[in-house]
Amino acid sequence: MTLDDIIEGIRPADAASMDAARLRQQRLTKPPGSLGRLEDLAVQVAGVLGAERHVIRGKALIIAAADHGVVAEGVSGYPQEVTAQMVQNFLDGGAAINAMARLAGVTLTIVNAGIAGPPPDHPALRNVSIGRGTDNMARGPAMSRSRAEHCIQAGVTLATEAADARADLIGTGDMGIGNTTAAAAITSTITGAFPGEVTGRGTGRNDEELMAKVAVIERALTVNRPDARDGLDVLAKLGGLEIGVLAGVILGAARAKRVVVLDGFISGAAALIAYSICPTVRDYLVAGHVSAEVGHQAVLSHLTLRPLLDLDMRLGEGTGAVLAMGLVESAVACLTEMATFDEAGVADREPNE
Amino acid sequence: MTLDDIIEGIRPADAASMDAARLRQQRLTKPPGSLGRLEDLAVQVAGVLGAERHVIRGKALIIAAADHGVVAEGVSGYPQEVTAQMVQNFLDGGAAINAMARLAGVTLTIVNAGIAGPPPDHPALRNVSIGRGTDNMARGPAMSRSRAEHCIQAGVTLATEAADARADLIGTGDMGIGNTTAAAAITSTITGAFPGEVTGRGTGRNDEELMAKVAVIERALTVNRPDARDGLDVLAKLGGLEIGVLAGVILGAARAKRVVVLDGFISGAAALIAYSICPTVRDYLVAGHVSAEVGHQAVLSHLTLRPLLDLDMRLGEGTGAVLAMGLVESAVACLTEMATFDEAGVADREPNE
Repeated sequence: MTLDDIIEGIRPADAASMDAARLRQQRLTKPPGSLGRLEDLAVQVAGVLGAERHVIRGKALIIAAADHGVVAEGVSGYPQEVTAQMVQNFLDGGAAINAMARLAGVTLTIVNAGIAGPPPDHPALRNVSIGRGTDNMARGPAMSRSRAEHCIQAGVTLATEAADARADLIGTGDMGIGNTTAAAAITSTITGAFPGEVTGRGTGRNDEELMAKVAVIERALTVNRPDARDGLDVLAKLGGLEIGVLAGVILGAARAKRVVVLDGFISGAAALIAYSICPTVRDYLVAGHVSAEVGHQAVLSHLTLRPLLDLDMRLGEGTGAVLAMGLVESAVACLTEMATFDEAGVADREPNE
Repeated sequence: MTLDDIIEGIRPADAASMDAARLRQQRLTKPPGSLGRLEDLAVQVAGVLGAERHVIRGKALIIAAADHGVVAEGVSGYPQEVTAQMVQNFLDGGAAINAMARLAGVTLTIVNAGIAGPPPDHPALRNVSIGRGTDNMARGPAMSRSRAEHCIQAGVTLATEAADARADLIGTGDMGIGNTTAAAAITSTITGAFPGEVTGRGTGRNDEELMAKVAVIERALTVNRPDARDGLDVLAKLGGLEIGVLAGVILGAARAKRVVVLDGFISGAAALIAYSICPTVRDYLVAGHVSAEVGHQAVLSHLTLRPLLDLDMRLGEGTGAVLAMGLVESAVACLTEMATFDEAGVADREPNE
């Protein structure tokens, strides 16, 4: 499928279902608006899934992992091997996302989008074979334009599979040593913020390391001159492979008319690329949380998204997305299952004279 | 059990378990602190339940409903009958809290703490028989001191039963037409804020009604002169019966060493009374959310609690508490189930030179 085919397949959310859901919210046994943002959320889900009421059939999280050539510049506090080691940890069930997903009944798909070393040997690992890490964006493009397009296509396939498996909520998660550097570079490019405004410490340790990281991003932008209006160019120039796959997951989920529950800063960078490629995806996005990584706020502002959670988290892996899925499900359950004033025989408020 | 017996039974959270949990957090496969507030939450739960690691065995929500004599002053947009009608709706499973509790696997206990009319006839309704609504606080005390003590004792019994049924998280919920007026009066008294600063519209409709509501609260405080240092006096003077029962639930849950997950403004007023009676309860409190009702912020500040959720909700019923229970459970699951760096063979960050 070409990128044009993918874009062509993404339609706006269904306005009639949203109107019906809004009307229903007014008739349910609660003061109007008293469920706050859950009411808007349920209306959005109605528009995405195309009916007034729903039962969420399944929840999926796609975690894409890859390595970044830019770690050669010393931007991370952890060695590059940790990417593969953490993927092994995901496969063994020992990471934070495993604990959360088990509790919430979320199906995990763990994707090797381009780990540098040999990938863990495990039947549950999905290898999408786009390469073994990106090139160093501080010295040239992170990848070719055709590799960037491959990432998107792989993500679309993964989202389509999740949708076919009846997942109504599709979350995004990431793992990749060095990926806050790529995400900050993407965010600076697409939102127009200065690198110093959107670069956080990531897993780095101190102010000197942070200043060096900003300088690396400035160099990458000078060397590559990514075109902010062309999401694929931004992805190719700055990486990473996992960010490209997640951008594809977002596009593919929107194409399949599923709710996209975004995690934090890395997922947000992927959403910026997806939105740059096809702004209609905005209808399908829910911001699970706001990360403690400083750049995430700029991402959310650009996408006009309000996060559901703000818990000072900055782990990635999809942890913020999975936590938020319970809120989305609750919002939908209220809209679908609550009795109306008439049904329950509860007196409604006297109208305002 | 006398109030002194209850207070005597409430011990501080276990510091050794909290220290052990804090140390464990540092060894888990994630950058230190990257789970943000979930890490502190899991440490608090370790202190409450008295061990480093836990599985949450059960979750309970106690919803107390009662009527308020102050509705004679026209402070609510809904007729008083709605209290009993909504209790019937809870019993029939048609309210927001039912939808949320079903989804989250939370056991509901619906308590008639003092509905004005005849209570719904249903085997699942717990009648604690403290009376049929409070007196009008704008003209004298809402109830006698001995009735206030009865409320507390009934709440302690309910919490003890939930704890005996293996609930590790005990949430508070409320229903009572007029109860934002009582909660605002309590909040003003105990926090020292002016009534106008902590009074919101509740279910009222416009600015004139809000101004009239503030005037009613000012009159109640002038007529009754509640003693801010004496929680039982505040409860007796201002009501309500459900707020007293919830204050008892909070004290009883702390006594049984269980985590108290607070809902919004009404539950917050109950927590102010419980805290005034026994400040040690603070160790056991988790603020599920911050309500859109303006007075709730003053409650949380007084109790030095940071809410987990901020979703513009103002429904009550325990909806904010039940939503937050999933976050508490996730926090505990991460601490209990995650692999350490050693166990997973993941390289830890190089130490800061």
